[in-house]
Amino acid sequence: MVDVRNLTVGVLGGTGAQGKGLAIRWAQAGLSVLIGSRSAERAEQAAEEIAEAGGGSVRGCDNSECAARADVVLAALPWEAHADTLRELRSELAEKIVIDCVNPLGFDKKGPYALEVEEGSAAQQAEALLPDSRVTAAFHHVSAVKLADTSVRHVDLDVLVLGDDREATDLVRALADVIPGVRGIYGGRLRNAHQVEALTANVIAINRRYKAHAGLRITDV
Amino acid sequence: MVDVRNLTVGVLGGTGAQGKGLAIRWAQAGLSVLIGSRSAERAEQAAEEIAEAGGGSVRGCDNSECAARADVVLAALPWEAHADTLRELRSELAEKIVIDCVNPLGFDKKGPYALEVEEGSAAQQAEALLPDSRVTAAFHHVSAVKLADTSVRHVDLDVLVLGDDREATDLVRALADVIPGVRGIYGGRLRNAHQVEALTANVIAINRRYKAHAGLRITDV
Repeated sequence: MVDVRNLTVGVLGGTGAQGKGLAIRWAQAGLSVLIGSRSAERAEQAAEEIAEAGGGSVRGCDNSECAARADVVLAALPWEAHADTLRELRSELAEKIVIDCVNPLGFDKKGPYALEVEEGSAAQQAEALLPDSRVTAAFHHVSAVKLADTSVRHVDLDVLVLGDDREATDLVRALADVIPGVRGIYGGRLRNAHQVEALTANVIAINRRYKAHAGLRITDV
Repeated sequence: MVDVRNLTVGVLGGTGAQGKGLAIRWAQAGLSVLIGSRSAERAEQAAEEIAEAGGGSVRGCDNSECAARADVVLAALPWEAHADTLRELRSELAEKIVIDCVNPLGFDKKGPYALEVEEGSAAQQAEALLPDSRVTAAFHHVSAVKLADTSVRHVDLDVLVLGDDREATDLVRALADVIPGVRGIYGGRLRNAHQVEALTANVIAINRRYKAHAGLRITDV
């Protein structure tokens, strides 16, 4: 398995709950973490909170610097900002492994539902906008609450990692494996990302019905 | 929890692997099982094989008789026959709980992928064709191999049960719970069925990569 502990991982949209939660765990595992945000000031503030929660090396900067300086980049952007932000970062993200964890969801009085995405999925949109990057999709169903709660020693879930580039999906799987309890499992090609993103609507429905922070495990693997 | 052991469950398309596997387990659990097929003769033959594999009460008949006589009906049809078969059975299936487990998938040299369905999903197509029935969706990711192998005492997976009718989803969950090891988990409204059906493409990709018969578990529930 790839050793990822000497890497710098950038988290675009790292001021959001999902990005923060993963940043806490990666910093705890010994990776250098760079939090990116539109505002460098808010990124620095989030980086301080993350370092306080779990320790480790965490710094904040604007999205462009984050993308340029990181070895591997998680796009934890709000869906509304996904396309515009990635389009602007095409050159900074060139040649890099990009992990898309964005779930395009809508909510109405009946609860959550999957939005239609012209490219098929957020991950495929990223692939279209970043033709020089190695785009993967992962970390869709992680509970931000459990990740941020450092008293949770064992995060009980598997992370499905999708992509067409074996070296890239292996590295992303290793980034999942450094979180105690978590396993990165290859989950198919990028063209099969839509249903993994959309399944977050079901996970939210489960959370509401069972008052849980549900995760997925893959059995027999 | 509902007691389902005194019910007669019909399995439309019960000569296929998924229907057969579930029929074996339900018959073992003490339910009366009716196998349906276009040909009553092939249904009877499948019923014999199923009874031989696991024991219990299993009989075969044509799809129409199966739908008319069963208390609850699993549609385990090939996707190609889904719409036409259900359309013909509208009156037989009226008022009944129908469980759709169909995964509309395509395969090419890159492997499996989800097909687009005009109604959104196989389950929503069933709902549109069967306006007098109580349509649910479940049993998408069960391994036919593990179900049919009665030496597997504990089938290690959860079944996501989707639907808008609480009484119906509770009954279907109970039908999952009678299989040793399996839990029925509420998985959201029927409008969120597409991604659960489509996720079967990812499960197949996992099975190929890991040489497994993968299933899902929901953690924290």
